[in-house]
Amino acid sequence: MAVYSAPVRETRFILDQVLNVGNYSNLEGFANATPDLIEAILDEGGKFASEVLAPLNKVGDEQGCKRNDDGSVTVPDGFKDAYRQFCEGGWPTLSAPEEYGGQGLPQVLATAFSEYVLSANQAFEMFQGLTAGAIASLLIKGTDEQKATYLPNMVSGKWTGTMNLTEPHCGTDLGLLKTRADPSPDGSYAITGTKIFISSGEHDIAENIIHLVLAKIAGAPDTVKGISLFVVPKFLVNDDGSLGERNPVSCGAIEKKMGIHGNPTCVLNYDGAKGWLVGEPEKGLAAMFIMMNAARLGVGLQGLAQAEVAYQNALAYARDRRQGRALVAEQRDPNAKADPIIVHPDVRRMLMEMKSFLEGARALVLWGALQVDLSRRASSEEERQEADDLVSLLTPVIKGYLTDKGFDSAVLAQQIFGGHGYIREHGVEQFVRDARIAQIYEGTNGVQALDLVGRKLGKDGGRAIQRLFALLSREVADASSDVALKPFLAEFTRAIGDLQASTKWLMENGLANPNQAGAAAYPYMTMMGIVAVGLMWLRMARAATTALAAGAPDRAFYETKLATAQFFADRVMPETGSLRRKLEAGSDSVMAIPAEAF
Amino acid sequence: MAVYSAPVRETRFILDQVLNVGNYSNLEGFANATPDLIEAILDEGGKFASEVLAPLNKVGDEQGCKRNDDGSVTVPDGFKDAYRQFCEGGWPTLSAPEEYGGQGLPQVLATAFSEYVLSANQAFEMFQGLTAGAIASLLIKGTDEQKATYLPNMVSGKWTGTMNLTEPHCGTDLGLLKTRADPSPDGSYAITGTKIFISSGEHDIAENIIHLVLAKIAGAPDTVKGISLFVVPKFLVNDDGSLGERNPVSCGAIEKKMGIHGNPTCVLNYDGAKGWLVGEPEKGLAAMFIMMNAARLGVGLQGLAQAEVAYQNALAYARDRRQGRALVAEQRDPNAKADPIIVHPDVRRMLMEMKSFLEGARALVLWGALQVDLSRRASSEEERQEADDLVSLLTPVIKGYLTDKGFDSAVLAQQIFGGHGYIREHGVEQFVRDARIAQIYEGTNGVQALDLVGRKLGKDGGRAIQRLFALLSREVADASSDVALKPFLAEFTRAIGDLQASTKWLMENGLANPNQAGAAAYPYMTMMGIVAVGLMWLRMARAATTALAAGAPDRAFYETKLATAQFFADRVMPETGSLRRKLEAGSDSVMAIPAEAF
Repeated sequence: MAVYSAPVRETRFILDQVLNVGNYSNLEGFANATPDLIEAILDEGGKFASEVLAPLNKVGDEQGCKRNDDGSVTVPDGFKDAYRQFCEGGWPTLSAPEEYGGQGLPQVLATAFSEYVLSANQAFEMFQGLTAGAIASLLIKGTDEQKATYLPNMVSGKWTGTMNLTEPHCGTDLGLLKTRADPSPDGSYAITGTKIFISSGEHDIAENIIHLVLAKIAGAPDTVKGISLFVVPKFLVNDDGSLGERNPVSCGAIEKKMGIHGNPTCVLNYDGAKGWLVGEPEKGLAAMFIMMNAARLGVGLQGLAQAEVAYQNALAYARDRRQGRALVAEQRDPNAKADPIIVHPDVRRMLMEMKSFLEGARALVLWGALQVDLSRRASSEEERQEADDLVSLLTPVIKGYLTDKGFDSAVLAQQIFGGHGYIREHGVEQFVRDARIAQIYEGTNGVQALDLVGRKLGKDGGRAIQRLFALLSREVADASSDVALKPFLAEFTRAIGDLQASTKWLMENGLANPNQAGAAAYPYMTMMGIVAVGLMWLRMARAATTALAAGAPDRAFYETKLATAQFFADRVMPETGSLRRKLEAGSDSVMAIPAEAF
Repeated sequence: MAVYSAPVRETRFILDQVLNVGNYSNLEGFANATPDLIEAILDEGGKFASEVLAPLNKVGDEQGCKRNDDGSVTVPDGFKDAYRQFCEGGWPTLSAPEEYGGQGLPQVLATAFSEYVLSANQAFEMFQGLTAGAIASLLIKGTDEQKATYLPNMVSGKWTGTMNLTEPHCGTDLGLLKTRADPSPDGSYAITGTKIFISSGEHDIAENIIHLVLAKIAGAPDTVKGISLFVVPKFLVNDDGSLGERNPVSCGAIEKKMGIHGNPTCVLNYDGAKGWLVGEPEKGLAAMFIMMNAARLGVGLQGLAQAEVAYQNALAYARDRRQGRALVAEQRDPNAKADPIIVHPDVRRMLMEMKSFLEGARALVLWGALQVDLSRRASSEEERQEADDLVSLLTPVIKGYLTDKGFDSAVLAQQIFGGHGYIREHGVEQFVRDARIAQIYEGTNGVQALDLVGRKLGKDGGRAIQRLFALLSREVADASSDVALKPFLAEFTRAIGDLQASTKWLMENGLANPNQAGAAAYPYMTMMGIVAVGLMWLRMARAATTALAAGAPDRAFYETKLATAQFFADRVMPETGSLRRKLEAGSDSVMAIPAEAF
């Protein structure tokens, strides 16, 4: 049976001592987020996640969702009741606007709580996580009537949301999509087509499902430029807010898949279902990208969350399982025939790889969420713009790098269990299967890398990447007087140098030959991920030396942070060197072989 | 539905042009392996694998094995019939000694064929693969009577074999094992205890199962030094060779696991089962290691085999699936709205990573198998010793590095499928789940790394590693006149330098502080894996330039080899640089945190 307890102390450290969210109390939303409230949310939210949601994780995996003969879908045992408690506790409403029944709290706090839900039960979280994305799109692009009709019930969790992009023949290349929207005399549209891979697409967990659907209006260009966004409720909503007629959108099948069995991945058939345009016609992709960007940060968080729960289980096992002797005699337990495997350097290597990744990743995701808050709420346009630039640049990196390393971490955790990790009993193999999806959906990680290199890097004359390098220089310079950080800074400076050289290489080669940019994209994204997590370790290490200098009582906590930062410098940062060499090798040998000669 | 066709052309290239097996026709076994016979075995064997075994791979996964109420185990539909055909075709007998009904062919040929079986159906292969290991132990350590009693039926496949090491509380640390062997007056022993994770431990695919079991004889030291090896048949064998009484060894449960569902992983309860000592008492571990070393090469082969089949499926998908446009205009298909995804540099990066790994790995495994042959059959003691030194050194590397990269390759193949890779339909997610076990069993890869650094490196005054470096220098020097290989050689020389420096670092630091060796072991193993595969690429590249210079008709085949070698140099070899830096960072930050402070 898998264990999970929410790492509240870790979250608090980042919010309070690394991101210093208290400094923003002059901003909307932050004012309400008093230290007491933050503590209550994290403590109670963590308890809810570990006590109510975590025990259902295995149930969801083993039972899966069931499509019934009438096309309805039944969620696993216990999910409905847990979801009811989740809504009653007000958990979906944390960062939603007060106008629609939300609590208006900062994104950074909602994100901190989301991590716990995702660690406890990723399949469960996806009912609400996608709803949050749908809310974001409607908030920005919906009409007042649409907002009034849908948002209060979506915010409360009474209704859930979905995003409908993929079709059988297209996922990444949405220009190919075939779903049609035919105008009706009443101003609505009749939506016809088949969508696949729709998470939470049909279920009995909530009363209604609000589908956001990409389709082409008759006569629109048959390219990405002809795509519009529609809101298509499962049940039409009457003027008084009650549920009306069932819309002809039905679940044709649910997919059998590698993991996240607790969430139904649906084929949805739209047979002239009634939908309403969201935003302007033929601007659907832009509207959907509002949702996608929020979703991508959320998926990066999934990578970290699966790594965290996998790590907790591996750590517990490594402390408990006795096998072999410590290599150094004085570390041996004289009262036993074998030592806990945590004494073995290679087991520690794996634990430290996970730990140094996931703590750094947590700081990075929360930092990203804070930038989202600042991009909306900071007092000056300059601050808002800087935050937006940074989070836009790093969104693909957070999605791509964190889900890659999140999966790798789950695999490492499984490895620590040896053969016991391969069997279902301990639950760790489920983390591997569940973590895998995050590298694929919301744009595969290859697509993230192309987004980074092809769109984000050159945007506004490279303003965002220049800001990132300026930030890095500033923070390294600020830290340079801290003697304890010298070995860390030496490695970090080298890693930043690799990223800078690679950026320069991309500028010089990528424009002339786009294949050079395409072949460089993945190592570049990974390199930026290492540097971004490295920046977080620099901040955490500085917070630790500050706390230690101030005589903080829990010295072990801060000393552990310093040791983990150094591990990240010793054992992860060197990768930027080889990534740079791979990138600088160019696209020749990547592209050399004709397709037919493979 | 997954596709598979045996890469016979690739195997032939390695056997004929890279390893030049024809040169060894003066040696026992090789004399029979005429070019015609090799061709017939690979062609027919490949056909058998792709036509009979591959279609059962998904059946095995979905149906799994079933333990019945009486403790018997039923294999998936079709497995029994396929196994019957497998035995009738003489496939299990290829490299077994003629004395016991085998064909006495070289290991290198049997290994080449095994790859096909493993690609087609790993769970199926494990019925026979473990039998081969058991045969190896009995051949070397068994009495004449034991050989006569068991080997003919094991060689033919009529009976299968198992290896019984693991117990609930111990796997890696066999000193802890509790299974007891009590001497009986008739010279046999009564075996009592519980073994777990026994692959093919109970089933209805063959008439009898010959268990090789580690146990402690009463009064033996309660450490690894007190372990003996026993042969324990499921059914006792009468003097006339017919099956007698059922031995009290029973299957208590079969494990639910992540993959390889088609093979039953059993809990075996020995309740005073009759067994006979194999080899000397208290020398059981050494006897079992004969089996383990053969098994470890076989597990390395599994890594490659899963990578191959995953790659074949990803390649087919990448050629077929159209999504997005080539980045370079002239590469676009003017007759379609989208291009096959193989045009995208990042998709190619993934294909090339797989291809450059698996072709190099195939050469390395076959080279390893050839060393096994030469260690037994070469004409001089010096040649036999050199072959044995090299394969002993590289066995943990072949097991560890090839299964790590084999898993990574399966994950990359899945990634190329996007969302379609996460659902079961295409079969690629099964390859990921099946490939995962190879990093764990027959000694986790962490244990392989320790075996390499702790045992193999220093053995006989470092003779084996010195031989490896001498071989590398010789081959690099020999190739230096080939201008076409200059860019490859530049990278390869750098990678060899990293390995040499790391070896020196280990010599200087590992002895003084074993934790340094322990913390360095994993990056060192990976580095040696890259260099070993690199050596194979050097050989393949040289074979390609030779063939091209000689005007070989299939130029595209050889040009593809050269391009793939260069990709390996450009995009994989640079990793040795960062691995070296990780290793040289030492164990301080790996070991810094006290166990309780994690």
